[in-house]
Amino acid sequence: MPRLARYLRLLHRLEKEDTTRVSSRELADRLGANAAQIRKDLSYFGEFGVRGVGYDVRFLIGELSRCLGIDREWTMVIVGAGQLGTALARYRGFAEEGFKCVGVFDRADGSAGKEINGLVVRPADEMADFIRDNEIPIVVLAVPAEAAAEVAAQAIEAGVKGILNFAPVRLSPAPGVFIHQLDLSTELMVISFYLSG
Amino acid sequence: MPRLARYLRLLHRLEKEDTTRVSSRELADRLGANAAQIRKDLSYFGEFGVRGVGYDVRFLIGELSRCLGIDREWTMVIVGAGQLGTALARYRGFAEEGFKCVGVFDRADGSAGKEINGLVVRPADEMADFIRDNEIPIVVLAVPAEAAAEVAAQAIEAGVKGILNFAPVRLSPAPGVFIHQLDLSTELMVISFYLSG
Repeated sequence: MPRLARYLRLLHRLEKEDTTRVSSRELADRLGANAAQIRKDLSYFGEFGVRGVGYDVRFLIGELSRCLGIDREWTMVIVGAGQLGTALARYRGFAEEGFKCVGVFDRADGSAGKEINGLVVRPADEMADFIRDNEIPIVVLAVPAEAAAEVAAQAIEAGVKGILNFAPVRLSPAPGVFIHQLDLSTELMVISFYLSG
Repeated sequence: MPRLARYLRLLHRLEKEDTTRVSSRELADRLGANAAQIRKDLSYFGEFGVRGVGYDVRFLIGELSRCLGIDREWTMVIVGAGQLGTALARYRGFAEEGFKCVGVFDRADGSAGKEINGLVVRPADEMADFIRDNEIPIVVLAVPAEAAAEVAAQAIEAGVKGILNFAPVRLSPAPGVFIHQLDLSTELMVISFYLSG
């Protein structure tokens, strides 16, 4: 999956450069990847690479976007409006890929009432109703570790289908809900692990 | 590696709860993981699990920390002091794991001069000398995609050994340098991919 996202990113850049066709070899060169792997990955979407002619950039963008589920707009809410939550709410990259933040929540005695990117931060106890009323599929958790499990349970109960969790704590799995854990410190440990090895 | 980081996090929590010994089964239960996998992972560090007695929590913390390279303090600099870079510079989780941000850089016509967490943001053209003079091993890139390759090249030239790159662009590999790519939008696509499938 991350490979598909990388191909898509490169294809968008090629489109900006007015490139209409690209070969698997060019893709491989620009990505520092293996041309055979790229051909294999892209073959899942059917035979749209033509030997000697390459892939149609715009067509491939459409196919990959559909596969990655970003041919549509996703609404999401961010819970936790501390430094990280605020940065996430302001992060332009999400909207560019079709992930639209429509609500930010924080504790009533925290950042609730503050405005971020044109959104007024709502008190956390309004989250569940908001998710239910607006059929929000995705919640991003930027709350402290202690709060994550309870917020996640409320969000799942209210109907979210996907959780991106930045809190440094493992959430319990729930049927029909995809939970993706992203702990920033662990990402740095990937580096210290290699530098120490 | 991410598994080891998870074990370590749980062990820290157990230590706070004054637990001195823990079995692989208890670890498995708390992590929602497989006890056999945990025993296998931990066996790399030698035979410190005793059947029926379990692991010594404090000892295991020491071993895992050493393995993950966080039994020491790492200095790092953050380049890019926009929303994301500022959030990263303020993120307490890094320092808690021994990753100390000692410098933040931004364009002279950007956020240079601003203060974040007691650090004055320096102009980006001072980055290379700062890395060299202070023998900084890790740089975190929170710059726009267009700037990432050049900043990375300068940092590598100045001697960094690890790069955590938040810019949505693949960096060229360099010998002796570990590059870890983390694109926040791609992390959301992991979710949309599953929700669309």
